Amino acid sequence: MLRTLAALASITLTAPAMAQEEEAPDAPSPATILDAASAEDWVMIPPEDLLVMTLAPDQDGDPREVVIQLMPEPFSQGWVENIRTLARARWYDGISVNRVQDNYVVQWGDPGHDNPESGEVDTKPLPEGLRVMEEEDYLADPPFGGGNSPLTHYQGQPTASSPTRVSGRIAFRGNPAWIGESYWKGFPIAGELTPHGFPVWPVHCYGMVGVGRGYSPDTGTGAELYTVIGHAPRHLDRNIALIGRVIDGMEQLSSLPRGSGALGFYTEEEADKRTPILSIRVAADLPEDDQPRFEYLSTTSATFARYAEARANRRDPFFIHPAGGADICNIPVPVRAVTNGGPE
Amino acid sequence: MLRTLAALASITLTAPAMAQEEEAPDAPSPATILDAASAEDWVMIPPEDLLVMTLAPDQDGDPREVVIQLMPEPFSQGWVENIRTLARARWYDGISVNRVQDNYVVQWGDPGHDNPESGEVDTKPLPEGLRVMEEEDYLADPPFGGGNSPLTHYQGQPTASSPTRVSGRIAFRGNPAWIGESYWKGFPIAGELTPHGFPVWPVHCYGMVGVGRGYSPDTGTGAELYTVIGHAPRHLDRNIALIGRVIDGMEQLSSLPRGSGALGFYTEEEADKRTPILSIRVAADLPEDDQPRFEYLSTTSATFARYAEARANRRDPFFIHPAGGADICNIPVPVRAVTNGGPE
Repeated sequence: MLRTLAALASITLTAPAMAQEEEAPDAPSPATILDAASAEDWVMIPPEDLLVMTLAPDQDGDPREVVIQLMPEPFSQGWVENIRTLARARWYDGISVNRVQDNYVVQWGDPGHDNPESGEVDTKPLPEGLRVMEEEDYLADPPFGGGNSPLTHYQGQPTASSPTRVSGRIAFRGNPAWIGESYWKGFPIAGELTPHGFPVWPVHCYGMVGVGRGYSPDTGTGAELYTVIGHAPRHLDRNIALIGRVIDGMEQLSSLPRGSGALGFYTEEEADKRTPILSIRVAADLPEDDQPRFEYLSTTSATFARYAEARANRRDPFFIHPAGGADICNIPVPVRAVTNGGPE
Repeated sequence: MLRTLAALASITLTAPAMAQEEEAPDAPSPATILDAASAEDWVMIPPEDLLVMTLAPDQDGDPREVVIQLMPEPFSQGWVENIRTLARARWYDGISVNRVQDNYVVQWGDPGHDNPESGEVDTKPLPEGLRVMEEEDYLADPPFGGGNSPLTHYQGQPTASSPTRVSGRIAFRGNPAWIGESYWKGFPIAGELTPHGFPVWPVHCYGMVGVGRGYSPDTGTGAELYTVIGHAPRHLDRNIALIGRVIDGMEQLSSLPRGSGALGFYTEEEADKRTPILSIRVAADLPEDDQPRFEYLSTTSATFARYAEARANRRDPFFIHPAGGADICNIPVPVRAVTNGGPE
């Protein structure tokens, strides 16, 4: 079975629409474009960049596993290193999901640290060797890599070769800034052209994973993590570190019962709703046969450009009015699981 | 208790951030602005415009209720009338939630009609008197109402009196169109300036409720409904009718287990995951004491303008970098429940 995040976002809304109508050969749907991708369009994610989070089995006794792809350089690498350190120290083993806020985030970490009502703090001492990151590390210098980099590919206004103008917000306070959006090695990013430089940063789309923190200048260690389960909270961009994205098992987190306490924390009375996290492992540390294997669609490939354009201008038979554009968070980078025998 | 949808989107991410730090008096947070709203800023929703959907109790035996605010004129009124007709014919009683697709929609309706694998269709005959709507009814003429209408209030480029430029996508295919976004009586809308007119339409934000349909030219009756549980699927705008939004109990739908069939439909094997819908009633038809009462923050009020600006430029103590703008779906119109004694 070929599994893609993109396929999850396909769209017919009633049973009749399940039927396969013919699509025009010159107007392929996003799914058709993905099906036609060549093997070279897919990039294997290194096992050092995959986290496997095992939740306690669900109430039916079925296993629950979540796979997170860690952020590539040059973004958030201090926190990413900390997370590998925490995983290898087995610090995450026995923590829990402590907060589920509708249309916002699921957050997991130390149950004592997380619970604002219990008064407990830091029941689990952190391992040694964690880096202390600065707020300036929320930003990175642009990873320009020549004419073929995705940043130049998508940068600026649409051109004939880059028809999909991915645009979210427009800055307007003070001097309107030029903010562009793009992709970097499978991740959605944004950048701002300022008189002082061109900082870039990853953006808060659905399924992105970030580092909980206290008030500034605290930047968090990576012990407290959250993922986005609603409309992209882009106001968090540049305010908090993003360290990866959920690429498998997202529904295990997004369908958890919401907490009724402030900010969606579970109250003392609903402590039984906290989902235990049995372990979080770097995939590279697992026996080779147990390592999950995932590929993402190269965001510099022509296939991805076609896919993005088709997402922005849906021509599947269901649609009568192509949108003519798309929010970057509505063009998720496709991911597929692979086995030794090839794509599942 | 004052309940607002906006409050659900508040944002601190760790326990230390729960503490109330002082905020600058000249830079109030969205929550502070709402707290200071006057009684006149709030608009009572007529009971004829509220749907009360009662789900079967959850596994703990706790009741589950969802309240939907129906779309005001001039939008989607044919479907809205159909929905009142279906509710009053008690057609919805005994239907079920048949589809839960992660980061996309929850859909409810006739279990036989919905299930693409069962081969059953239309197990429940529809009542008489339903209107057949046209695709052109996805659009409306702009409800301009003079200088104080929200459309003119937010229209076009930002001005000193309208500092929040709410912008989503930018059209670019063919002749780039001018697309603006605004609010109308509590609902997010968009409009396009074309050589032929200025059509406007409601937009697919989190919690918006729409009408499932088959292939064009079918436009659906209102018997099949869905709500958005993920990042705003704006590609559905102008392709399908939106008839309202969930204003209470959203978490009862968004946290349901995802279906493992195509498009998130529950398979035959997981038929027990379908959530029964006991009834859907127009609030006006309930005994007066049982009628839920909700108000929304007037989208033409100065308070809403301040709230929107603060959402776009977060200055709460947690933030270090205001975004300088916001997607319209990140400025949800606040709603609060009221009792006879005033706000809860």
